[in-house]
Amino acid sequence: MTTDYKPMWTSLGLNLEKHDALLDVLGKAYQDIYLSQQNRPEGMGYLDFVMSEVHGLRIKELQDARAAGRKVVGTFCVFVPDELILAVDAVSVGLCAGAEFGFDEAERLLPRNTCALIKSFFGFKLSRVCPYLEASDLLVGETTCDGKKKAYEIFRDVQPNIYVMEVPQMKTAQDRALLRSEYLRFKEALERLSGVTISAERLKRGIDLVNRRRSALARLAALRGANPVPVSGLDALLINQVAFYDNPARFTDAVEKLCSELEKRVGKGEGVAPKGTPRILVSGCPMAVPNWKLAAIIEGSGGVVVGEDSCVGERGTRNLVDDSGSDIDSLMEALVERYFKIDCAIFTPNQERVDHVLEMAEKYQADGVIHYALQFCSPYVVESYRVEKELSARGIPVLRIETDYSQEDTGQLKTRVEAFLEMIRK
Amino acid sequence: MTTDYKPMWTSLGLNLEKHDALLDVLGKAYQDIYLSQQNRPEGMGYLDFVMSEVHGLRIKELQDARAAGRKVVGTFCVFVPDELILAVDAVSVGLCAGAEFGFDEAERLLPRNTCALIKSFFGFKLSRVCPYLEASDLLVGETTCDGKKKAYEIFRDVQPNIYVMEVPQMKTAQDRALLRSEYLRFKEALERLSGVTISAERLKRGIDLVNRRRSALARLAALRGANPVPVSGLDALLINQVAFYDNPARFTDAVEKLCSELEKRVGKGEGVAPKGTPRILVSGCPMAVPNWKLAAIIEGSGGVVVGEDSCVGERGTRNLVDDSGSDIDSLMEALVERYFKIDCAIFTPNQERVDHVLEMAEKYQADGVIHYALQFCSPYVVESYRVEKELSARGIPVLRIETDYSQEDTGQLKTRVEAFLEMIRK
Repeated sequence: MTTDYKPMWTSLGLNLEKHDALLDVLGKAYQDIYLSQQNRPEGMGYLDFVMSEVHGLRIKELQDARAAGRKVVGTFCVFVPDELILAVDAVSVGLCAGAEFGFDEAERLLPRNTCALIKSFFGFKLSRVCPYLEASDLLVGETTCDGKKKAYEIFRDVQPNIYVMEVPQMKTAQDRALLRSEYLRFKEALERLSGVTISAERLKRGIDLVNRRRSALARLAALRGANPVPVSGLDALLINQVAFYDNPARFTDAVEKLCSELEKRVGKGEGVAPKGTPRILVSGCPMAVPNWKLAAIIEGSGGVVVGEDSCVGERGTRNLVDDSGSDIDSLMEALVERYFKIDCAIFTPNQERVDHVLEMAEKYQADGVIHYALQFCSPYVVESYRVEKELSARGIPVLRIETDYSQEDTGQLKTRVEAFLEMIRK
Repeated sequence: MTTDYKPMWTSLGLNLEKHDALLDVLGKAYQDIYLSQQNRPEGMGYLDFVMSEVHGLRIKELQDARAAGRKVVGTFCVFVPDELILAVDAVSVGLCAGAEFGFDEAERLLPRNTCALIKSFFGFKLSRVCPYLEASDLLVGETTCDGKKKAYEIFRDVQPNIYVMEVPQMKTAQDRALLRSEYLRFKEALERLSGVTISAERLKRGIDLVNRRRSALARLAALRGANPVPVSGLDALLINQVAFYDNPARFTDAVEKLCSELEKRVGKGEGVAPKGTPRILVSGCPMAVPNWKLAAIIEGSGGVVVGEDSCVGERGTRNLVDDSGSDIDSLMEALVERYFKIDCAIFTPNQERVDHVLEMAEKYQADGVIHYALQFCSPYVVESYRVEKELSARGIPVLRIETDYSQEDTGQLKTRVEAFLEMIRK
């Protein structure tokens, strides 16, 4: 970053010293993990630029938008519909955090047995190192898991502008009615926040923006089915992560451009890893920036990640919203229809997820599945039992990993992943 | 037990060897903890008898009922309305388990980071030592917490006759509609199971039975407000535990009789512990038989427990169902009304619980509150932060304990409880 963003960070109330420390770690990790990759597509240059300005230019854009009267809405979950946020001309940013930072402070408020993702956004807040949190006019939490649901009650003490959305736990008609009712309540909250009434036209525009982003990401996902695979799992993960906070139109253009480049690669039979490289599907918990741990281990051990069944991945991006309705009611219904399909482990039963993993494994020619769960994330940790059982029964090798954001178990994970890849190669 | 119940246990498929081991442990614990108490009310004789026949006579009653065409319904949560179960002449039994038994087997299916209550019912099932589980024609699980919600999916593999009820997470009108819809679905499931249609008259009878049981337990609770307290917390806990599986009419009579005896004690100013004994309110997770650990530590350290804000305690028993309606719809609505008030930590926000703890502390003249949470029970562990904060702000001493079913931390807990009682005495 060449511009001096310190005055902006100061005005946002950041702790500059800790923030510098975070940026140092982040920059070094990016250098080591991303910039050291061989044979990267040129289109990744855009992502490199975005990452270099992640706390700089993008925050300036948010602050400029706010100065122009627009609102910034921070979210923690793919159940929060970006379409509605965009429909009031607000800016949507994903706030899940992927670094072990400020955990000591977080553990003064939360049990130690809390997943790293929750501790991380508490730590970022308590250490005052996250400009996205500080620039948000509204934060949207949800009741997905026990940990988040109850943690937001405490988070409110340090960040009062938090709104909590209820998410159902089954898929009955009554659950759908609950989700619909919650989306209507959220729509009203956004209208109050922004002073903008969501017309059918506005909502269509929001749907269109998000559909286009999802279509670009689906195009990227499909290209990873090629053998050899034209892009690394690390780069694909980064793209899915950046989708949560970059300008949607600009981001979509960049991804489409990258996809055109990758199509040429595929046409020429070129890839980032030679044919025969074990192709791995990662399934499980979301990975927020800078949580690149597992993909780095897999690809550093001679495998390649070809798909993510994850909130930061296909769980968050697949299925478009039907934009054919012409009135607000039918568009809201289409929104509910799309989001109600999300196969998150918070649902019981959740056979859809197993089916989707099987479908992805076939589509992306995966040789094995690594199930990734954050420690203490009961929904995914418990569900991994069934995922392994059903996949194994169909002859798909599965490795179940439970970890956190620390680097302490990296060696052990590497050994397990290497053994898994070795087993696949045989 | 003088009768030979072995043939009955064998017919239920129990593992007799392991079952003997469990009964040995249970019998010894009961002897040490309960029968060693001084100055017990005579009315506790009934409870001693029930406990001596807990896997004997009561199971025979269940089997006799089944032979006569009635059904046995096993439940895991106070959100499952006994009124409906009784309305189809079925027998309701609480299945939460309170002993560390079969945990090795349980941990083959569940993460180690699962609360002891869940591991316990898995362990009981996998070791085949629980005649209640084996005698149940239907098991009713619910989506209260992530752990249970997802564990039932696995439990189904070993016990296919499980039915799962959804419980809402907030208290909006839409949540109430969800609960109503779930109670209607459950009513239909019970009708299918039993072949009995629930008429208004039948439901009224069920409501009456449960209301009378709740009233008797409320009478007992109120008597514990006396100083000195006429009954130990251990005995009161046992009564609340036995309420879950004893014959409701017989149990209610026994509790009423005990209450009359306690009233005389109170009239004479007699108690189980001298005036000046630190009076403790226990708040938090349920304690299923034979989980007497915390009450035993408190009362063994010179305190006395005067109330339980717990599912096995007032969270489960307070508030009656309005039985004034004359048609099934209004009675079902009354049922929803009563259960929707439950102040479980699964709700967000849950200020009602803090308010209720404050109310109980005053009513029972508590000198301090011990917050009891099972390790890995996120809803209660996280909520304990706010409970402590709000109580402390009002000058009520709070001790937060997080533990499991093992005896490993007994010494450490005793030290902490003693220090807490000492602090209160000053």
